[in-house]
Amino acid sequence: MGLTAYVNATFYTMNHESDVFENGMMIVEDHKITYIGPKNEEKLKSAEKVIDLTGKWVMPGLVNVHSHIVMTILRGIGDDMLLKPWLETRIWPLEAQFNTEIAQISTQLGILEMVKSGTTTFSDMFNPNGIDVDAVMHTIGETGVRGAFSFTIFSLGTEEDQRNNLDGAERFAKNYKTFADGRLTTMVAPHSPYSCTPKALEESARIAKENGLMGHIHVSETEYEVKDILNRYGVRPVEHVRRSGLFDQPTVMAHGVVLNDEEREIMKQYDVRVAHNPISNLKLGSGVADVSRMLDAGIKVGIATDGVASNNNFDMFEETRTAALLQKGTYRDATKLTAETALSMATRKGAEAIGMEHTGSLEEGKCADFITIDAKDKPHLQPLSEAYSHLLYAARGSDVSDVYINGKEIVRDGSCITMDEEKIIFEVNRLQKTLSY
Amino acid sequence: MGLTAYVNATFYTMNHESDVFENGMMIVEDHKITYIGPKNEEKLKSAEKVIDLTGKWVMPGLVNVHSHIVMTILRGIGDDMLLKPWLETRIWPLEAQFNTEIAQISTQLGILEMVKSGTTTFSDMFNPNGIDVDAVMHTIGETGVRGAFSFTIFSLGTEEDQRNNLDGAERFAKNYKTFADGRLTTMVAPHSPYSCTPKALEESARIAKENGLMGHIHVSETEYEVKDILNRYGVRPVEHVRRSGLFDQPTVMAHGVVLNDEEREIMKQYDVRVAHNPISNLKLGSGVADVSRMLDAGIKVGIATDGVASNNNFDMFEETRTAALLQKGTYRDATKLTAETALSMATRKGAEAIGMEHTGSLEEGKCADFITIDAKDKPHLQPLSEAYSHLLYAARGSDVSDVYINGKEIVRDGSCITMDEEKIIFEVNRLQKTLSY
Repeated sequence: MGLTAYVNATFYTMNHESDVFENGMMIVEDHKITYIGPKNEEKLKSAEKVIDLTGKWVMPGLVNVHSHIVMTILRGIGDDMLLKPWLETRIWPLEAQFNTEIAQISTQLGILEMVKSGTTTFSDMFNPNGIDVDAVMHTIGETGVRGAFSFTIFSLGTEEDQRNNLDGAERFAKNYKTFADGRLTTMVAPHSPYSCTPKALEESARIAKENGLMGHIHVSETEYEVKDILNRYGVRPVEHVRRSGLFDQPTVMAHGVVLNDEEREIMKQYDVRVAHNPISNLKLGSGVADVSRMLDAGIKVGIATDGVASNNNFDMFEETRTAALLQKGTYRDATKLTAETALSMATRKGAEAIGMEHTGSLEEGKCADFITIDAKDKPHLQPLSEAYSHLLYAARGSDVSDVYINGKEIVRDGSCITMDEEKIIFEVNRLQKTLSY
Repeated sequence: MGLTAYVNATFYTMNHESDVFENGMMIVEDHKITYIGPKNEEKLKSAEKVIDLTGKWVMPGLVNVHSHIVMTILRGIGDDMLLKPWLETRIWPLEAQFNTEIAQISTQLGILEMVKSGTTTFSDMFNPNGIDVDAVMHTIGETGVRGAFSFTIFSLGTEEDQRNNLDGAERFAKNYKTFADGRLTTMVAPHSPYSCTPKALEESARIAKENGLMGHIHVSETEYEVKDILNRYGVRPVEHVRRSGLFDQPTVMAHGVVLNDEEREIMKQYDVRVAHNPISNLKLGSGVADVSRMLDAGIKVGIATDGVASNNNFDMFEETRTAALLQKGTYRDATKLTAETALSMATRKGAEAIGMEHTGSLEEGKCADFITIDAKDKPHLQPLSEAYSHLLYAARGSDVSDVYINGKEIVRDGSCITMDEEKIIFEVNRLQKTLSY
């Protein structure tokens, strides 16, 4: 691939200065951005290909920092239920019926939905039971998406089962540390303090440390969990996980709904990053994470959807808007979590939270992961002059027109060109009927 | 118009039993539904026109019980601001620059967005200053939408100004009580207890009573308002408004965020209905209305977007989902406000709340106000088997394919056929540039 120039659009860079270039220009060489700024006729001459994006808004692809993509086939099964029975009577029994084919199709459906709604990078935690993880990773690689994947470590079954689970996680973490042109990488993911033994947490910490990988774990999702861990171990979840050594590596903590000042202090000290899942936390009745206090404490926070079984979609525009709205509403202060901060959390800061500083903003040297929005025919994005506001407060996933990841076109005019949409939708419906619930 | 049969779709009736007819049939004669149920070959023979909706989901049009459609042109102006400065430094100074042309185009843009995202009926409160309300009502009539409109009563300016405002409201309420084939009607709308004198509230009550019209008023939106009214009048807002006599007519109370048990008791006793605006209440930092307690108290509650200056879109799917999610999250109980209840509030119960019992569900004898969703190509609405869940938890306004109001096709395959979309969008952008802020 030579130099491609993208011209005549408005570029929302989401860099540290939140620069916006109206009638701007971006040059991409191979998979990287080599120029972003005002239109420059000199540089334009060097381009082998010029793509005219007149009237479009261009922004970095969205970064979803916590999902369970393999569960996408479970969308809509088990709403309006409490977390514990939801997991125990629906999600886990259904996951136990999964096989590689279901995992592959479910993953394709999820990625299809993600890319079409503007997500270019995600950090995922999947249950490996009953599935060939190599086959699934190859499927993910073929879609063109960027992401960090975690093979979930659970302390379930016999001692041998637990050993096999840990061995599988270690093998996976090493094998896919750099995969699919470097787009895919791995993290080490003990599921949670309540579903892993202290030994499993320690082993997870060892694997992460030995391989220079990040940790990824669910912590402090509910009041129930905090009480449970206090009862079992005499300390709250954050301190319990800290003692395992997992936080010695940078770690993504999903949820963090129930935290106190002391825990936020530990998190800041250990550079623990938070995956904030506002819709899932509401839907499962967990509550509202205090993102404002986390940001004040200097903790990195990204936005995430969680799995669609508790969301029930992967629309990061809606998720980010909800994150901003909830801080304003719970603090009764409309100035909390502004549009600019929320959008940076859904892009640059989210990428930083999952250790992917090479994406998340339109800056020279970063990977060319970007999306376009064609607002001009859309009533809900008028008047056009207030675009920056609309990106947070009015836009939805279906407004995304084109998606590029690593310089490669993935979605064009709303249609995915790297996946067979019709086949995936057909297969997911066929396979879903094989599940009993 | 003769008999039209709509066949081969799945019909989500939203009637009291939440009946769903897969491969069902609906017959519409003129503007009313005369049959809804399983496919019936005998009845099908009587149809002069048969419309095949294979694979589509059909549901009643959504009912938005509180909006400010004339303000649509202000979308995105003044985010992340507190309510008082937002009103005083942005909204009111901008509204003061409005003229009839701006009001007409703004209204068309809002209705265009509403119908395209599945709303067929809405209850609106508009600021009449500087605009020819007759011209605006004719514009609304031509769009084909259904709604109840309120000319806002404010106690501003000289005594003569206030008299003119009340006279205008009375004239408007009478003139448009039944308008545009009965699709449009009126309510009597003193703006709020803090912006109206007790005399203006009493006059509003008189106008409502004399004309057999409902009231429509903002009450108890913020803590600040409650304290302010307590200071000024020695009673809380609900009691203050009750004393004016407004509640002697059924009244729509927008917001109701800050209420105590005693106030809910008064509201139940006087059959006050609530317009719940979850996103606007979050965005302006007002808080979360306790919808669960209202429903427990037997109060009718509908879902609303408020104006897009505090939302910032008219997507009733997103709004209804947010309403359900907030009750679960604030009560830390996933069983609160289920999909079925939330969807009924966005349809049948919303219609009942604004006194439009003739719409809001697919039932024999009701007006043919319905929408279709074409899910089969949409990744975020898979697997198809869980459609009922997806309608609340995964769908968005852009999923709407066709919209019928009063038996008339308004939107076909996502395009509005009663309005010139391109012209409206062009004009709204041109006119917005004439506003200074």
